[in-house]
Amino acid sequence: MSCVFCAIVAGEAPAIRIHEDDDYLAILDIRPFTRGHTLVVPKRHTVDLTDTPAQTLAEMVAIGQRIARAARAAELADATNIGINDGRAAFQSVFHIHLHVLPRRNGDKLAVAKGMVLRRDPDREATGQILRDALARIDANP
Amino acid sequence: MSCVFCAIVAGEAPAIRIHEDDDYLAILDIRPFTRGHTLVVPKRHTVDLTDTPAQTLAEMVAIGQRIARAARAAELADATNIGINDGRAAFQSVFHIHLHVLPRRNGDKLAVAKGMVLRRDPDREATGQILRDALARIDANP
Repeated sequence: MSCVFCAIVAGEAPAIRIHEDDDYLAILDIRPFTRGHTLVVPKRHTVDLTDTPAQTLAEMVAIGQRIARAARAAELADATNIGINDGRAAFQSVFHIHLHVLPRRNGDKLAVAKGMVLRRDPDREATGQILRDALARIDANP
Repeated sequence: MSCVFCAIVAGEAPAIRIHEDDDYLAILDIRPFTRGHTLVVPKRHTVDLTDTPAQTLAEMVAIGQRIARAARAAELADATNIGINDGRAAFQSVFHIHLHVLPRRNGDKLAVAKGMVLRRDPDREATGQILRDALARIDANP
């Protein structure tokens, strides 16, 4: 399978899953800029903003908003950047559309710059568990 | 009025408008990173991802997608970044939620770095007209 996100959706490639429903998956970025850097991926393959239905974008952003809230609630974040890199010139590297959710900390500019070079989380499993637990708490008290 | 986006919505502050409907405004960023850098703003004031309804986010992203397509169609962009800076630590500077639409060009890394310092468009009126015309063409052939 040539698309790594389709392979993850099919269970043929590993990923740390934060959220899954019938149509979407949210996984930890394998090369995170910051701790908890998550990607929201529709299971149905489309490439970018030119071919993805508006309804899919809406549902991706709704999941991203819940993860942003979970990251704040779990004290992984004071703030978040959410965004889509639409096309190669915009730094899209996997050509299966995805929404980045990037937890940010007060005063983290240098840490983010370092993270953009290192791109690793020393304890991905723990990070995944923290976000899953925080999402479950948000779902229980929406 | 203390919120600059509320002042623009009320017609009390100037802006170059790309799109307007009953609930949303899209305007050129007054300090653009790249030519055509646009902000999609809900008319109703909310702050960030913690207080903005999911439906509002969905509608903001749908408008952002149309502007991204218009920028490509008008050859202002080969690609786009769309995103929300949610909170001060994520570089949110106006605390009225907005979606950035950032047109990108192949090989524009240095130009974007320069744009992040200079943050000016020598012909904002022309840029606004180009995007409005491209949106009108997209609306005519959705």
